[in-house]
Formats: sequence, C-alpha cells, structure tokens
Amino acid sequence: MKIIITGGAGFLGQRLAKRLLQHYPDSIRLLLADRVTTDAFAADRRVQSVVCDIAQNADVERLVTPDTAVVYHLAAIVSGQAEAEFDLGMTINLDATRALLEASRRLPAPPKFVFTSSLAVFGGELPATVTDPTAVRPQSSYGAQKAMGELLVNEYSRRGFVDGRVVRLPTISVRPGKPNRAASSFVSGIIREPLNGEPAVCPVTRNVRLWLSSPATAIENLMHAHLIPAQSLGTNRTINLPGLSVTVGEMIETLEQVAGPEIVARIRFERDEVVERIVSSWPGRFDTARAAALGFRGDQDFASIIRGYRQETFPTPSASHA
Amino acid sequence: MKIIITGGAGFLGQRLAKRLLQHYPDSIRLLLADRVTTDAFAADRRVQSVVCDIAQNADVERLVTPDTAVVYHLAAIVSGQAEAEFDLGMTINLDATRALLEASRRLPAPPKFVFTSSLAVFGGELPATVTDPTAVRPQSSYGAQKAMGELLVNEYSRRGFVDGRVVRLPTISVRPGKPNRAASSFVSGIIREPLNGEPAVCPVTRNVRLWLSSPATAIENLMHAHLIPAQSLGTNRTINLPGLSVTVGEMIETLEQVAGPEIVARIRFERDEVVERIVSSWPGRFDTARAAALGFRGDQDFASIIRGYRQETFPTPSASHA
Repeated sequence: MKIIITGGAGFLGQRLAKRLLQHYPDSIRLLLADRVTTDAFAADRRVQSVVCDIAQNADVERLVTPDTAVVYHLAAIVSGQAEAEFDLGMTINLDATRALLEASRRLPAPPKFVFTSSLAVFGGELPATVTDPTAVRPQSSYGAQKAMGELLVNEYSRRGFVDGRVVRLPTISVRPGKPNRAASSFVSGIIREPLNGEPAVCPVTRNVRLWLSSPATAIENLMHAHLIPAQSLGTNRTINLPGLSVTVGEMIETLEQVAGPEIVARIRFERDEVVERIVSSWPGRFDTARAAALGFRGDQDFASIIRGYRQETFPTPSASHA
Repeated sequence: MKIIITGGAGFLGQRLAKRLLQHYPDSIRLLLADRVTTDAFAADRRVQSVVCDIAQNADVERLVTPDTAVVYHLAAIVSGQAEAEFDLGMTINLDATRALLEASRRLPAPPKFVFTSSLAVFGGELPATVTDPTAVRPQSSYGAQKAMGELLVNEYSRRGFVDGRVVRLPTISVRPGKPNRAASSFVSGIIREPLNGEPAVCPVTRNVRLWLSSPATAIENLMHAHLIPAQSLGTNRTINLPGLSVTVGEMIETLEQVAGPEIVARIRFERDEVVERIVSSWPGRFDTARAAALGFRGDQDFASIIRGYRQETFPTPSASHA
C-alpha cells in the first residue's frame, strides 16, 4: 500500500511516518515528499525520500502514481510566512493542494486524501465556543488559503475524485527544535526555550486564549483520520479536532508548577503586533463532540504536555532539570 | 470613471449597465465584457462592448486598465452547467475570478470589486434560518467555486488589494427570455412560460422552499453594493441579500391568483433528480438584518414580482391576458 506524505521531511511528517510504519509493518510503501531530503529512514527499505517542488505540476504527477492509496498533504507555507509572502502562500497552500487533488482524481480508484487545515480558518466575530456550523472568516492569508483548500477537498470528495478528510489542527505545542515562521511559533517557544536553558520572547499578552494539541496527540489524530470509514463522515469532510483551551498566562503558570520559577524567569514579554493580531483572531475554544464521536482524542491537560516534551527531549531524569 | 461589468452582455449585466448609466449620467465609462458582443448600447458613446475570454489572462489584463474604479464580476458558469462540466466551472468561476482580482491588485488604487455569489454556497445540514455566521457547505460545484471566490475577495480586501463586496444573490425570478443551464432555471420558467402561453416543466416537488428576488430588486441591490462605504462593511465583505421565502407550491398558487387557473394548467410536474438534489440543498430562509442595515432591500411579495414581470413583458393591458 503506497502512502504519500507531503512535507514528509518535516516535524509532523516524520512522526507520522514512524506511526504509519508501526501500524502497517509489512504492507506499506511510504513516500516522503519534501523540498529537502531526509535520511531519518535511510535504512528502511519501505521508505523513500523524494525531493520535489509541489508547485511544479510535473513533480506532483511523478509523486501520485496509480498505486497510491493514501495522500497525506501536510506541506504548507506557515502563517507568518504566508502573511509576508502572499504569492508563495497562494502557490503552495492553494495551487499545490489543487494540483495534488487533480493528480489524485486521475487515479484508477479515489485515494484517501488527508488535508491538514487549521483553526486559522476562523476569525472575526466568533462565538465563545466554535461549533461545526460556525462560518470560517479567516483573518490571515494562511487561514484564507487553508479555507479554500478545505472547500476543494470537500468538493473533490463530493464528486468522488478523492475520499477526503480535512482535519483542523489546533496549535501544536510543544514542538521540539527551532522556531519557525508560523505566527504561533512562540506557543512552543515559551515552553521549549526556557526548558532548554535559553531565553524566550512572548509576543502576545497573557490573556490570549489558545487551542492546543501536543505533537503526540496530533499524530494519533492524523493517523486516525485515514482510518475512519467514509460513510461515518457523510458529506461534511471537515473536522474540528479536539484541543486544550488555555491562555498564555495559564501556560506559563503551568510551566512554573512543572519546572520551577527559575525556568519561567527566562520568558520576556515583547509585543509583536502582527503576531498578536493573527493569533488573537483565532478561536480559543471549540465544541468537538463530532470529532470525539468519530474517535479523535485530545490531551488531558497542559502539564502532561510539558511533561511529555521533557521526557522526550531529556530522556534521563537528571538531564530533565535544565 | 471606468466601470467594468463581466458578463456585461448578459441579462443582469445589461440591466445593471442601464442602471449605472442612469446613476452616473455624465462621468461614466462603461465596459461590458462578455464572450459575445451586445449592441444594446450601440448608440451610447459612454459604453463599450468588448468580446473577451476571462479564462485568458491576457484578455483580463487588457480589460483592467489603470483608470478602473469599479469591477462588477458577474460572469459565471451557472449551476447546472458547472455540475456537468467541472473543469469549465473551475476555470471561469474560480480561476477567472482570481485573474480579475490579480489584475485589480496591480492598479494604482484598489478598485471596488463587486462579486456576485449565491445562496448555493450553503447546503448540508442547515438551520431553519441561515444567519451571517452560518457556515457554507456547498453541495454543488457551482456553490463550491463561488464559496472559494468569496474567500478570495475577502482576502484580497483584507490585504488592501481591492475594496471587495460579495453579494449572495437569492434565486432570481422571474427572469425574462429563455431557460438557461442553471439548476434553478425552472424557478423562472414555471411562471414565465405559462404567462407567455407556453407549457412549462417543474422538475421539483411543490414543497421545495426557495429564496427569491425579482430582477429589479437584484439590480437595485447590485447597484447599491458599490456605493456602501468600505468602513460600514468592516472585515466581513460577504452579505446575504434580502429575499422572499416561498415554496414552489406557493409560487404556483400566487400565479393562479394573479393570472388564473388556465395559465397554471400549463405547468406539468416531471421530476429531475439532479435539479431537485441541487435546488433542495439550498436554504429557503435567511435572516438578512445586516443587509437591511446596510441599505439593501427585498421584494414585497411574490404577486408583485409576477405583476412586475407582466408589466415589463406585456406593456399594454390587453396583451397581458395571455
């Protein structure tokens, strides 16, 4: 069974790859498509790393061969970069999504097509709790492009061209590694950097409310997305994923409880208006009953997310005290 | 002041042109862009009819010259045809809309950009009354393409590339002339054909509820759309226009009251599943308080719509008794 992951060399892509290899130990052929190659699976004959540019139709055609059973389309220009580079965002977040759907449409059997959307499709005047019938009103180019991608995946599914599943991911925290150009990059940074012994800048005020998922939960939910029977989804292929509703202030308090005041002292507040405008436009609370009924799950609390990050990053107990 | 109307040789385009000429008698330069030419304004030096293909970027670039103040983008592949010819619908309803927005973006000052969307963006499980925060869930290719166009116009407005206004038109009845490939074509046909002494086919059951606007009201609202100050619209450039909520049965009863049973006897019911599926997916009732506050208006009742059509089509009292 051939599974393609675009953005396959990225943070989520690699973790999803590991999870899929574990789920289908024998039958899988995994193609990790990205702008860069990854040698994370170099020894694994089930995995192929392909360098490609999904803005090029020829590259997309080469990826999506007739034996493709599942396409995980994770590649994207993140929110901060899409705001700074409008045309690039349109090309990757909209045009490349359409090119992948078009290539999928030409297959002998409609593949499962899992598209990662985002809470960034929401904005403007929002109800206290976002529900399934809440209208999208993106206040960022990233959100607008993802919202159009959602419509494409739903329409291509309605027409039977693909068997689509759109998951609206919460903001993921704590991402390991370096900051990226997502407006939400600080949501990991204010936890990760202090724990790693480094200073962190928080560009928004403490009362900004976020909707969060740990990386592990995001991967479990991404994995689950391709396993749900099509008939359970019906005509609405878009799912608001479960998350934790916490404010920036609550995140920092939790960090203090888990790791101590000397860790939290490494966080400095320095307002960034662009980041604050974008992140504040996102909803901080969802009703995700439909997702729960479909078998998706959320994290228990933010303390467990911090502990999960520490365990993974500093595997020995002594090293965990930064 | 240069105003462009795409679909300018069409039914709404020509009426809007007349209305704009009346509103700006001296200062206007009106460009009617369409696949076909129109000689309706041949004697009027303020009007230019341009044959063009808005699927061709070069044609779009030629239309949108630096002196453009307003773009009315009415051209579209209608619902029935977009369902039958998916790729053509994508090209005209999505790609050409984007090309017009891109050409507008390159102007020295952002033009007003009026985009006609449709109640067809809605579908699936709907509340009894659609409100501004109701999520779009198109159940037709036309609806999906219009919903993406709405997102584009909102995003291009947010970025300051255009000053956009998206009006979601009700189904228009009674359109004069011939049937077209809209799934809703019968909504005019079941009134127009009997009054014209011809047989009509109704492809849906009597209890299907529709959301209607007369042509005259649609034109007044289209006209009004470019006059609203941008600050009144805020960040949400999409407006559900006022309409009349009536069932097919009520339309036919009203026709009988206005024109007599011998007229209504010309209507035959013959179910068309594709048409019924598409038209039944559309909402039949809206809360349009925001539109009313912005100065848009609706029709009084369906009887006045029928009378309006008769007066226009059969101007002398004797001829009105078909």
